[in-house]
Amino acid sequence: MVKPGKIYGIGVGPGDPELLTIKARRILKEVPLLLVPRSRRDKDSLALSIVEEFLREDLERVDLLLPMTRDRDELKKHWERAARQVLEKLQEGKDGAFITLGDPATYSTFPYLQRHLWELDREVEVEMIPGVSAINDMASRVGCPLAEGEESLVITTPPKTPGDLEEILDRFENLVIMKAGRSTGEITSLLESKGLEGRAFFASRIGFADGFYTRDLSELKDKTFDYLSTFIIKFGLHKG
Amino acid sequence: MVKPGKIYGIGVGPGDPELLTIKARRILKEVPLLLVPRSRRDKDSLALSIVEEFLREDLERVDLLLPMTRDRDELKKHWERAARQVLEKLQEGKDGAFITLGDPATYSTFPYLQRHLWELDREVEVEMIPGVSAINDMASRVGCPLAEGEESLVITTPPKTPGDLEEILDRFENLVIMKAGRSTGEITSLLESKGLEGRAFFASRIGFADGFYTRDLSELKDKTFDYLSTFIIKFGLHKG
Repeated sequence: MVKPGKIYGIGVGPGDPELLTIKARRILKEVPLLLVPRSRRDKDSLALSIVEEFLREDLERVDLLLPMTRDRDELKKHWERAARQVLEKLQEGKDGAFITLGDPATYSTFPYLQRHLWELDREVEVEMIPGVSAINDMASRVGCPLAEGEESLVITTPPKTPGDLEEILDRFENLVIMKAGRSTGEITSLLESKGLEGRAFFASRIGFADGFYTRDLSELKDKTFDYLSTFIIKFGLHKG
Repeated sequence: MVKPGKIYGIGVGPGDPELLTIKARRILKEVPLLLVPRSRRDKDSLALSIVEEFLREDLERVDLLLPMTRDRDELKKHWERAARQVLEKLQEGKDGAFITLGDPATYSTFPYLQRHLWELDREVEVEMIPGVSAINDMASRVGCPLAEGEESLVITTPPKTPGDLEEILDRFENLVIMKAGRSTGEITSLLESKGLEGRAFFASRIGFADGFYTRDLSELKDKTFDYLSTFIIKFGLHKG
């Protein structure tokens, strides 16, 4: 029996291929197998578009169909199938790289794959390669630090209620709201009601050619934004 | 008069030179001027040790003496002097790179330099190059996600009181405590009193040759650790 291959969970950064790490690029050049998560068969993978230029010509590519759904049973079924697909390839002795936007430890799907793989075979060797997260890229692009000195930082998906947002505001200096595409209206209203609209930065599709960045939240009115949208809100300025 | 140079604030990643981005390496190869923050004249710069292998041979290096002190006047004096040193070089028409561990937007000193530079000359062109933060590297090394799905994450310096830690614990799923080297005893006691010692990961000098990683907090007893120490605490497991 051949020794099973190892799986890498590679953070490919926020969008610009130059923001890959040297290590991620080296491993992507070396592995014979690329594992590409896709939400729909007919939709291009953003992660794949970032790394395409670095790949081996004789690379074997396996698409993993992982639809976005809140139906837990449906989701579990897809993850189990993806894990079986991956394990089969690793058992041929090939090392594989699973590519994920940003950083594999920060709101990535790689930990799900790892858990489902380990349910099938606890001996599978796994290595995560950290990447630049979209929020670090956004902070650099808009020239606004995420946290300084003794400050604290909360990173969250859109708060469920206005009260949740107020609690954070009372206690912490900096807030990042990720995956905010569908909540821009509510978040903007909340910030306006607190007089904090001037403390916020907004970005959508950070690092991609059609990326959008603004400090003027009135620009968000009556527009719809991609799921990959982020607010950075600096309460520290408010308190200081 | 020559056109003044531009300053880059470059995140050099957590320690492993392979975790630099391709962009950071390119710029470090191109710039004629390197700006190296140092806490003491006789102490080697960690950031410099990471990038040394990538630098131009004819590079001009300027050390900026920025001692760690809580004396605000003292600190201000040093930053103002550093900003004047940098501006003088940029006015010769040279582009310069200021190197900082991890990511320039995450607890870095680069924003201080930027502010002091802009106080001297608001026209200085500044570009930040994001980097992999030590916490992303730590999460990958210990194989533990920072946040998943709808979870939230708090990043903070050591909480001032046990009450502060309890508040975070009640409200959020994941906590990262940075710069925890001098507070390992207090944090460990607090986690033990909450029965959470099994939910924590600890690392010191992440990414360096003498890096230390553990899930067993009893290993921290009676030891002293570097300033660059971090806890990741997964409350989500506790609640779920």
